[in-house]
Amino acid sequence: MSPATTPSQGRASLAFATRTSGMKPSAIREILKVTESPEIISFAGGLPAPELFPVESAMMAAAVVLGGDGAAALQYSTTEGHRPLREWVTRHLVDWVGLSADPGRVVITHGSQQGLDLLGKVLLDPGDVVLTENPAYLGALQAFGAYEANIVGVASDSEGIRPEALREAIDRAPRRPKFLYLIPNFQNPTGTSLSADRRLGVMRVAAEHGLLVVEDDPYGRLRFEGMPQPALVASAGDVPWVYLGTTSKILAPGLRVAWFVSSERSIIEKVVTAKQATDLHTSTFTQRLAYECVKVPGALEQHVARLCEVYSRRRDLMLAALATHMPEGCTWTRPEGGLFLWVTLPDRLDSLQLLHEAMKAKVAFVPGESFWIGEPRRNTLRLNFSNANEAQIGEGIARLGAVVGAAMAR
Amino acid sequence: MSPATTPSQGRASLAFATRTSGMKPSAIREILKVTESPEIISFAGGLPAPELFPVESAMMAAAVVLGGDGAAALQYSTTEGHRPLREWVTRHLVDWVGLSADPGRVVITHGSQQGLDLLGKVLLDPGDVVLTENPAYLGALQAFGAYEANIVGVASDSEGIRPEALREAIDRAPRRPKFLYLIPNFQNPTGTSLSADRRLGVMRVAAEHGLLVVEDDPYGRLRFEGMPQPALVASAGDVPWVYLGTTSKILAPGLRVAWFVSSERSIIEKVVTAKQATDLHTSTFTQRLAYECVKVPGALEQHVARLCEVYSRRRDLMLAALATHMPEGCTWTRPEGGLFLWVTLPDRLDSLQLLHEAMKAKVAFVPGESFWIGEPRRNTLRLNFSNANEAQIGEGIARLGAVVGAAMAR
Repeated sequence: MSPATTPSQGRASLAFATRTSGMKPSAIREILKVTESPEIISFAGGLPAPELFPVESAMMAAAVVLGGDGAAALQYSTTEGHRPLREWVTRHLVDWVGLSADPGRVVITHGSQQGLDLLGKVLLDPGDVVLTENPAYLGALQAFGAYEANIVGVASDSEGIRPEALREAIDRAPRRPKFLYLIPNFQNPTGTSLSADRRLGVMRVAAEHGLLVVEDDPYGRLRFEGMPQPALVASAGDVPWVYLGTTSKILAPGLRVAWFVSSERSIIEKVVTAKQATDLHTSTFTQRLAYECVKVPGALEQHVARLCEVYSRRRDLMLAALATHMPEGCTWTRPEGGLFLWVTLPDRLDSLQLLHEAMKAKVAFVPGESFWIGEPRRNTLRLNFSNANEAQIGEGIARLGAVVGAAMAR
Repeated sequence: MSPATTPSQGRASLAFATRTSGMKPSAIREILKVTESPEIISFAGGLPAPELFPVESAMMAAAVVLGGDGAAALQYSTTEGHRPLREWVTRHLVDWVGLSADPGRVVITHGSQQGLDLLGKVLLDPGDVVLTENPAYLGALQAFGAYEANIVGVASDSEGIRPEALREAIDRAPRRPKFLYLIPNFQNPTGTSLSADRRLGVMRVAAEHGLLVVEDDPYGRLRFEGMPQPALVASAGDVPWVYLGTTSKILAPGLRVAWFVSSERSIIEKVVTAKQATDLHTSTFTQRLAYECVKVPGALEQHVARLCEVYSRRRDLMLAALATHMPEGCTWTRPEGGLFLWVTLPDRLDSLQLLHEAMKAKVAFVPGESFWIGEPRRNTLRLNFSNANEAQIGEGIARLGAVVGAAMAR
């Protein structure tokens, strides 16, 4: 048979859904494409260090999973997810963040991003209010934005979201807010953590208003220093909650295996039904593979300790390089863990304009602009310290410092 | 730290999104759970034969992918999908179904079900009209239903959807229909295929109305007899189209690797943006694994030939058993390929009621009810012939025949 030609574009007038008007391609992803060229030192992506991926463990796990019950690993499965993995999640949550949930309240998702999408799908009507930190995780803004949410940014500082500002935001909201979305540990993009006082304050306000609290915790295990914190929602009491965890930062993001946990049976039921219609279930094979990797007692802890060791050193190097190379008038956060830090330039600088000059100097970052809800502070930018190696960090920050210095001198 | 207790359910009054009122748990999935017990012979699921999964190939592929560039296979990747796999898809489409598209018009999805979800997400506002066969694939009804579509069933018979009924449905629709959704080959649930005449007729009507045609083709390669057909949309000319293909039925559904292809650059762009917000990208690892399995020249063809050989024999056995055991007054389709056939019982029987008796007799099927749009024909049911082995098929159909016979005698 002879192939048909692909029709030329543009002649069909397609009417897209209203919600697509709020869907914008991610600046981060577009930048990632450009920064794939090897001579650019990129602090832009949120990528883990690939040289630390547990490739050997994954190879062994793949052999065990396929060699053991290969047919089951390649077959359709239940929407809720692989039962032993869900049981492992519940044990892990108790041990690591003091959170108790039975496996019936755990759904395995295709990455935490899918958890955010499903949350939006089951909870958000157009115009519904979602409260979050400001600046906030771009992927969450995109996920909730796709359901035409009214996302309200709550004033945040170096200790995280401010409880009194949260209370005011609830009072001022045009509708009863559907939920509060937070990354309490080493937030994306700022790297800051919610302080102990603020945790109490936030949960007190949530309790007063019966507000659903959504805790997104991809980075919590990557703590280099300071006291480990229980999950914010571990002290929820009667407050309904959702907790999102993932293998992406502690094992490998390419597997797309994460968990959606909730205090509310009704949320789990709706999420399972929505997931059925969305993708039937998360890959049976990657779920079993992830489970093989994490189930060995102590193996994950040892791997995470190694990640913390390397990432901590990279953070230190980046902080030192910033202190050496950034001109007076620039400030930055000092994260106790995670993957990111956040730089504030003098007010009159625009980091998006700066990016074009930075790319010429072969260094990349994410302009802060797209993380802000409402009026962006254009003098901010996000740096990732987990992906580049130590030599690149020193050199890249030197280049960045020179670009910022030149812009300030103009 | 001591674990917090999971709060008791019910005290929080959660307001779910309006769209959830149309989301119902899949009857198929609920039944699948019950039929997991080994003494039940199940014709209910749409499961491939697990004993035919290419476990050895998958083991070798996993070793090659992780041993070759394991870091890349475990890292984040682009939303569009693994480039070599997308290139393979374009070659495969030309060779297999005469469809020409460049890799820029291919997005790798987490199963075809995700393709349906993304299609709904970018195209459907509440109340938008979608046209489809009647009965239709339940997963599509769920995917589009989640976006509150007005799904209109178009009269269909043993040759598939009727073009004149399609024209009438377009004329009568309260809004200009967003698209026509079809499974032209070995349709789920009926097993019937769109005849050559009907293909021409459907595309003529689509051209007259500039109607977007969505061809879902999970089973097309599983043809046991009759002439191979080019893709319905290969003759689209100026008609905009979407084509969905998947590894699920020709390799393994547990991988969740499928492709979304369109003539329209604008649809691809919106789908990529929507997928970013939905799950960032399909598992890097399973994409590369699938590519390793399919890229060996001739290997997939050989595997598919083996599937056809076994499934064809099972279909024959099921048809023979139906002829032997089903009472007079029952009819069924005779598919030329795929996984399913469709039984019509005498009018007064209700297959959902019958299922309870069938379960007692240790045989399961899917009642036809949930596949119908509008008034269901409750005397219909779907049988899968790919999953059960040959001894089970004979025994299971004998049990079913006895159950139907008893019901007819009452």
